[in-house]
Amino acid sequence: MTPTLFEIRFGVRDYECDAQGIVNNANYLHYLEITRHAFCEARGTSFRAMHEAGIDPVVRKIEIEYLNSLTMGDTVLASLDVRREGARYLFIQEIRRASDGAIAARATVTVVVLEDGRLSRGDAVAQMLGID
Amino acid sequence: MTPTLFEIRFGVRDYECDAQGIVNNANYLHYLEITRHAFCEARGTSFRAMHEAGIDPVVRKIEIEYLNSLTMGDTVLASLDVRREGARYLFIQEIRRASDGAIAARATVTVVVLEDGRLSRGDAVAQMLGID
Amino acid sequence: MTPTLFEIRFGVRDYECDAQGIVNNANYLHYLEITRHAFCEARGTSFRAMHEAGIDPVVRKIEIEYLNSLTMGDTVLASLDVRREGARYLFIQEIRRASDGAIAARATVTVVVLEDGRLSRGDAVAQMLGID
Amino acid sequence: MTPTLFEIRFGVRDYECDAQGIVNNANYLHYLEITRHAFCEARGTSFRAMHEAGIDPVVRKIEIEYLNSLTMGDTVLASLDVRREGARYLFIQEIRRASDGAIAARATVTVVVLEDGRLSRGDAVAQMLGID
Repeated sequence: MTPTLFEIRFGVRDYECDAQGIVNNANYLHYLEITRHAFCEARGTSFRAMHEAGIDPVVRKIEIEYLNSLTMGDTVLASLDVRREGARYLFIQEIRRASDGAIAARATVTVVVLEDGRLSRGDAVAQMLGID
Repeated sequence: MTPTLFEIRFGVRDYECDAQGIVNNANYLHYLEITRHAFCEARGTSFRAMHEAGIDPVVRKIEIEYLNSLTMGDTVLASLDVRREGARYLFIQEIRRASDGAIAARATVTVVVLEDGRLSRGDAVAQMLGID
Repeated sequence: MTPTLFEIRFGVRDYECDAQGIVNNANYLHYLEITRHAFCEARGTSFRAMHEAGIDPVVRKIEIEYLNSLTMGDTVLASLDVRREGARYLFIQEIRRASDGAIAARATVTVVVLEDGRLSRGDAVAQMLGID
Repeated sequence: MTPTLFEIRFGVRDYECDAQGIVNNANYLHYLEITRHAFCEARGTSFRAMHEAGIDPVVRKIEIEYLNSLTMGDTVLASLDVRREGARYLFIQEIRRASDGAIAARATVTVVVLEDGRLSRGDAVAQMLGID
């Protein structure tokens, strides 16, 4: 089920494609990251602002399935949902090809939150992002 | 348990670190990829040679856990094991910090094999890599 | 003098910043490239379409001056002019910080054109891009 | 004339090649950077160590000519010379293909030195690197 909480749209950059002519799998993690960061900005904060407040979200785990490849000229729709599980944030993310809606990748990204360098329950982030 | 079939050693490149001063999580996928590709070369083949023979290994899924961060000046030990499960290859990979042996990341990378563009059982790759 | 033929606007991506907290100098070449490629698309073509027609623009030389750094959260204005000098295309490019108009970098990118793998006068590209 | 003060050797990483099958031009700046940083380490210092001492070398200008392309499987020889011109350091750098010695790129990289955030004459760096 496509996440619906937040979505951005952007174009594949030609240099992101490798010699197979498709977006290299590492670049999908960049796509996932810019989606999460854009979500933070849409909620009125940023990784820099959080860092300056002593709050550092840290990626602990990523599970990503690659289903269809993306290539030069493609437009990408990247969406996410987020939910808390104890001290962890789970970002449910999806990357689709805009032209036909095909799912390029599905991912679950587990994030924990350091406060002043120590693992926390992450309540500060929930408050900043307006998450229950 | 640290994989023991194959291991390479290389240095963190300064530009791989992001504004937090640590290797950005997307670059770990590069580390995993160069380890798999170096393994292929050690077995006498390469992604280019396979591609020219109509054989294209494709990453279908990656699960990666980030346990300790890497930073400028670190030397990396990257090791792998591989086993087949039906038509899939599972690469069990680990990235360690050479100085103290700390595990930076653990990953399982699932690869399928296209032959002439179609999903295959992957026997050609097993033969090229000397895998049972 | 700021180039005025074509301009795009995009945000710095956090992962483009290195441990100094600023956009790594190699990423400016990506910015220059996406600006040239977006210009081609605005003119109704693309690097892929040109390649499929046997036409390959190739970067021969880049001169770039770094004047002010860019950082997380910055919006970028990237503009270009282009002129021909014999068989060469000179792209005059500029990267500015949107917030205050400060010039982050100025570059001249020299491109030659291969047709069917051989150096050409580049007339095919001039025609496709509507350049005199 | 090939620079002879310092040289390193490393392999092209497959992901550094773009859809044209050759190393993307932005990655050459990474090659230049890792050569300069390896040179610093060979002289007993590092960018991190300099930064911690309040000394920040900053790239001001790069001129790079692309002469032959590099591709998957290539081994690279990257060498440099350095000389001072007033408050500037000029790194004369060359990237060659090991198999046949062909020059892939020639570059001049101009670096200035900030001390505690202010432009300096750069004497501290000359001393650390053992440069006249």
